[in-house]
Amino acid sequence: MGAGISGDWSVPETFLLGPDTRQIDLALKLYSGIEHLGIVAPHGHVSPALLADPQARFANPHELLVKHDHYLFRLLYSQGVPVEALGVGQAECDPRAAWQTFCSHFHLFAGTPSGLWLRLELTRLFGVSEKPSARNAQAIYDQIDARLGTPEFTPRALFRRFGVEVLATTDPATADLSQHAHAQADGFNVVPTFRPDAVLHFGRVGWGGHLKTLEQFSGRSIESYETLLDVLRQRRADFRAQGGTATDHDARQVALAPLPAAEAERFFGLALQGRLDASQAAQLEAHALFDQARLSAEEDGLVMQLHVGSVRNHNPLLFQKYGPDMGSDIPQQVNWTHGLRELLGTFGNSPDFHAIVFTLDESTYSRELAPLAGHYPALRLGPPWWFFDSVLGIERYLDAISETATFYNTVGFNDDTRAFASIPARHEVWRRTIANWLARQVMRGILDMDDAQRLARLSARELAVQAYYFDLPSEVNP
Amino acid sequence: MGAGISGDWSVPETFLLGPDTRQIDLALKLYSGIEHLGIVAPHGHVSPALLADPQARFANPHELLVKHDHYLFRLLYSQGVPVEALGVGQAECDPRAAWQTFCSHFHLFAGTPSGLWLRLELTRLFGVSEKPSARNAQAIYDQIDARLGTPEFTPRALFRRFGVEVLATTDPATADLSQHAHAQADGFNVVPTFRPDAVLHFGRVGWGGHLKTLEQFSGRSIESYETLLDVLRQRRADFRAQGGTATDHDARQVALAPLPAAEAERFFGLALQGRLDASQAAQLEAHALFDQARLSAEEDGLVMQLHVGSVRNHNPLLFQKYGPDMGSDIPQQVNWTHGLRELLGTFGNSPDFHAIVFTLDESTYSRELAPLAGHYPALRLGPPWWFFDSVLGIERYLDAISETATFYNTVGFNDDTRAFASIPARHEVWRRTIANWLARQVMRGILDMDDAQRLARLSARELAVQAYYFDLPSEVNP
Amino acid sequence: MGAGISGDWSVPETFLLGPDTRQIDLALKLYSGIEHLGIVAPHGHVSPALLADPQARFANPHELLVKHDHYLFRLLYSQGVPVEALGVGQAECDPRAAWQTFCSHFHLFAGTPSGLWLRLELTRLFGVSEKPSARNAQAIYDQIDARLGTPEFTPRALFRRFGVEVLATTDPATADLSQHAHAQADGFNVVPTFRPDAVLHFGRVGWGGHLKTLEQFSGRSIESYETLLDVLRQRRADFRAQGGTATDHDARQVALAPLPAAEAERFFGLALQGRLDASQAAQLEAHALFDQARLSAEEDGLVMQLHVGSVRNHNPLLFQKYGPDMGSDIPQQVNWTHGLRELLGTFGNSPDFHAIVFTLDESTYSRELAPLAGHYPALRLGPPWWFFDSVLGIERYLDAISETATFYNTVGFNDDTRAFASIPARHEVWRRTIANWLARQVMRGILDMDDAQRLARLSARELAVQAYYFDLPSEVNP
Repeated sequence: MGAGISGDWSVPETFLLGPDTRQIDLALKLYSGIEHLGIVAPHGHVSPALLADPQARFANPHELLVKHDHYLFRLLYSQGVPVEALGVGQAECDPRAAWQTFCSHFHLFAGTPSGLWLRLELTRLFGVSEKPSARNAQAIYDQIDARLGTPEFTPRALFRRFGVEVLATTDPATADLSQHAHAQADGFNVVPTFRPDAVLHFGRVGWGGHLKTLEQFSGRSIESYETLLDVLRQRRADFRAQGGTATDHDARQVALAPLPAAEAERFFGLALQGRLDASQAAQLEAHALFDQARLSAEEDGLVMQLHVGSVRNHNPLLFQKYGPDMGSDIPQQVNWTHGLRELLGTFGNSPDFHAIVFTLDESTYSRELAPLAGHYPALRLGPPWWFFDSVLGIERYLDAISETATFYNTVGFNDDTRAFASIPARHEVWRRTIANWLARQVMRGILDMDDAQRLARLSARELAVQAYYFDLPSEVNP
Repeated sequence: MGAGISGDWSVPETFLLGPDTRQIDLALKLYSGIEHLGIVAPHGHVSPALLADPQARFANPHELLVKHDHYLFRLLYSQGVPVEALGVGQAECDPRAAWQTFCSHFHLFAGTPSGLWLRLELTRLFGVSEKPSARNAQAIYDQIDARLGTPEFTPRALFRRFGVEVLATTDPATADLSQHAHAQADGFNVVPTFRPDAVLHFGRVGWGGHLKTLEQFSGRSIESYETLLDVLRQRRADFRAQGGTATDHDARQVALAPLPAAEAERFFGLALQGRLDASQAAQLEAHALFDQARLSAEEDGLVMQLHVGSVRNHNPLLFQKYGPDMGSDIPQQVNWTHGLRELLGTFGNSPDFHAIVFTLDESTYSRELAPLAGHYPALRLGPPWWFFDSVLGIERYLDAISETATFYNTVGFNDDTRAFASIPARHEVWRRTIANWLARQVMRGILDMDDAQRLARLSARELAVQAYYFDLPSEVNP
Repeated sequence: MGAGISGDWSVPETFLLGPDTRQIDLALKLYSGIEHLGIVAPHGHVSPALLADPQARFANPHELLVKHDHYLFRLLYSQGVPVEALGVGQAECDPRAAWQTFCSHFHLFAGTPSGLWLRLELTRLFGVSEKPSARNAQAIYDQIDARLGTPEFTPRALFRRFGVEVLATTDPATADLSQHAHAQADGFNVVPTFRPDAVLHFGRVGWGGHLKTLEQFSGRSIESYETLLDVLRQRRADFRAQGGTATDHDARQVALAPLPAAEAERFFGLALQGRLDASQAAQLEAHALFDQARLSAEEDGLVMQLHVGSVRNHNPLLFQKYGPDMGSDIPQQVNWTHGLRELLGTFGNSPDFHAIVFTLDESTYSRELAPLAGHYPALRLGPPWWFFDSVLGIERYLDAISETATFYNTVGFNDDTRAFASIPARHEVWRRTIANWLARQVMRGILDMDDAQRLARLSARELAVQAYYFDLPSEVNP
């Protein structure tokens, strides 16, 4: 029996591969061709502050691994562990106590992507040799904590060690980009991504405050939609100047459609007065998103990322207590076929427009997104997002899109993480799963080995370089 | 080649396992740990009368296996076999002739869950050694019929033989629970489940009659919604007193939302006058369901089961002739994310509220239900329901929910059957399929054997014990 | 390692089978029983002109394989290859230059159904021994072109060589059926299918022109809906007289519902005046489709095919330039449960009505279509359509429908192609994939070998013969 079956916690060579033994052999061969490729991380939520300051340190194991990871605490919460017991949302907490609680419930992560990432991270990075439990929690804390205190475990040292070629962060329209500048000045390729959600979600609580922040930042009084658009245009230029190549937008539904200019101004006026109703807010947001697409297509060429379908803060109790990102964002159905029609009808044939879409509604992959990406030159499919960035999620994604859109209309992998130390683990799960999936296709004669090796390399690194227009060497000839 | 491939009809040791040989070995190991566990049957439609009376007998093979099983006659009907030819809906019929028709078409069940259950049932329970056909129909009838006449084949004897630890039936609000009392008095753990659909489906034909029955049963005149609620409150107490731990509700859409009290009363008044329109009926039903949830959360702690998404009696011809349950209930899309929001926003964080949901819209598992159950402590996922209680249905379910919700937020298995003799077969298909699925994950290093063994035992028995708060020993430490 | 893994381009015996070696053995056994069965092609888009005229020839490799295949040029278009560079939509083009462009991008088809079909077609039919590329493009062109000039490669010769027992084309209501008559007179079993979409899509641009054509063809002035219906009734009789056994209907949504006669006439009057709004057009189309069903059920017994869910011509640029069928038809969600209710409630129990449905919304297979087809005797499921006529698409289809609807409520395979030379390749992919899927079920003991062999033969040929009422020998006893 393979090493995966034994009780120990080291990661076997065949991790995630199989089940067929011949498939494992082929998958290992494919994986060996991509295992050591550099990491291209075109979309994520790591703080640029980590790389800006050579003195930045991870405070402790709890801060590094638990406190900010809503993948972890949402699952523990569902099983009756209060977020407070994990130190989440608390100004002060005892990190060792919270870590103890976390480890005591580690069995709950069996079979989850978080469980797999943590296994890779804890064993590879921190040399942990046992699965966490109530019994060994403090010993593991000590072991990780000791390493965090060494020069080899600063964010910058890890950045080098991980082989990160580029890391794109996600930043609000009001981001001063000095942290990116500092990181870059010291040779760390950290670039910003323009995410103006806060000032484009017109109907949401707090919008006025975000607009005010933007006014202060830009030194302009924003009394019309036109002015807002112009301020954002300038900010996009700032992001580009700092190495940014993309924008990002979160929306509940797929809606991008222009309004007559006067109507947009009227709605914006209502927004300023706090009198916008839900329908008007949705229309104005769709108008503004369409304008962001127009800027991409006609002015600055920034790649437009759309993350659509998450109903944010579904749980009012946690939202009222602790705000957003408490693990209660829940997906809903989306309609890409209709929602993208105006956008793609206008810019979808343009060689200067590039959209990348992310969905939480898996049923849309084969029905809508693969046919759309398999036709429009402007459209590419992002990798499985969030809940679906998992072994089975990746396999379903490949099954759903490979025959219609093909790998060539995808953008490889995004780790999409705020957990810096998990980046290599996430890329490894992707690469192993891709290799294993391709191996199955080779075994059935659906792909030959040449194609499989090319697709493996494309998916592991090249497609991301190309789709995000990073200035990095690109090695794969089609 | 394995025994499953030969022509004979005995059930091989490796039934449903594989296809990989190493996977089979592991699956057998996992299955051996759960094969002999007692049966916990927390949701089903067996009549309590079978266990109430020591003299109860199964009339004949046709009555036992065909006449009441809409899984069987719907498929035969789709292939041109009139339900009348199967004795269905007939006051009188020739059971041998109907049995002959059934066996003549047995090949149609190849690869269906009914086919698998019948194979297990006929071979294991009745010693049948050949697949049914036109040729051997009467001989098989004789063989089964002879056994049904023996003391070993009374419902009570089979209950013991099957190792049923608890059987929950599904009962209307007007159920006198004396049959449960009789069964319990003689040591058969048969408990009721409170299903008040008939009096809460305000807009349906026949509602007035059901309300009248409830008035007679309770001895109260129900002229207001408030009174109805109070009568139901009392009935819930009666069910609890008789060992019931849960309620159950069938709905076409996910809708639970309170109305202002006066509005609810106004709609109820219209319902009494038969003047409720469809929208009002839906609102009143959503209000009443919300109140049932409130009773669970705030008063009696009964676990709330929601079975949502079946369009009942799609075929008007069969409904007019023979009434409901004629095999023409057809699923539709449901929206859990929005439909549960008010409910979970109100009670979803409470340790005293417990909801279990069942869906016929598989696309909701990964998109909505797993994220919801992977966050709210009050929510658990029921096993695959109805059409999806099948080998491939179970595998898709596990693939869809295991990474996000995890097994820990499920409730194990429900056989959901009205066919008493099929209970062990259904649990066996579940247990074998679970074992095989877990074996695949172990082979790939996604689970280790300890976790897999724990999850197997949880799924086979413990999760059901815990989720339904049965007073039974619980053996698995997490 | 198997032959599928080597670099050469011949098709290995185990093509598409596996991955498990024992599964491959069983699949080969099953495949050997169906490999040589005649081809029944009950739905497709081949031009009858090809078989009508003994002098018909394929012009050249580009015309034969690229120019009319929107599966190919949509994918190339998505990767930045202008359709013009492929000679698509061009009155004149250099076929060698277009072929060169095509071959230069052949790597894009890795893993797609088009790639698999082309491999079978090029190697088996034309003896091509290398994968197409920029380097060998002209040599391959020469090789194919040389064969096309020989008597063995006329459409009629290929028809014989392919073993086509019957080929049903798809024809408008205005088709003079002389080409079918010519083909049949010379012993080629080519039959028409009645597809009156053009005159029943009342709201679409060009409807008036199509109606005029029908008036000219029929010699009748069509000033009322009733007259239109009568003209269509006559045309259906013409199609039947020429061997047609089915109708076909394309619709964006599932909608078949009668209007009051006066309302239908009123809407028709508005249509003639070009004043029909979108809602009225939809209602009138639903009414007209219902009437076509009525004609099937009550008058002529033609099998009704419904292809529902494609949003045609999603890309306005290509539509304006080159018209329909430019590879930008995009699927959307459909609702079969509600959309078919009136139809099945009226005719679904009739032994004289036969509907075959095709979906592009895979989520409806397990949720709606399998339960519907597993109940109503009038309903059968068409094979995976379009994007889903692929190895993984077929496997998902079988997984989704086999347990609830069973193979018996399907209609086997349709190649649905306008590429005549690809017919055997498409049937081979279907047959191999079916054999492999059945082999897996046999290995797990879900099917026995007898059942698997029967289902293989049914799926490969017999179900199509039966469902379309072709006058051909039928060999499989149930």
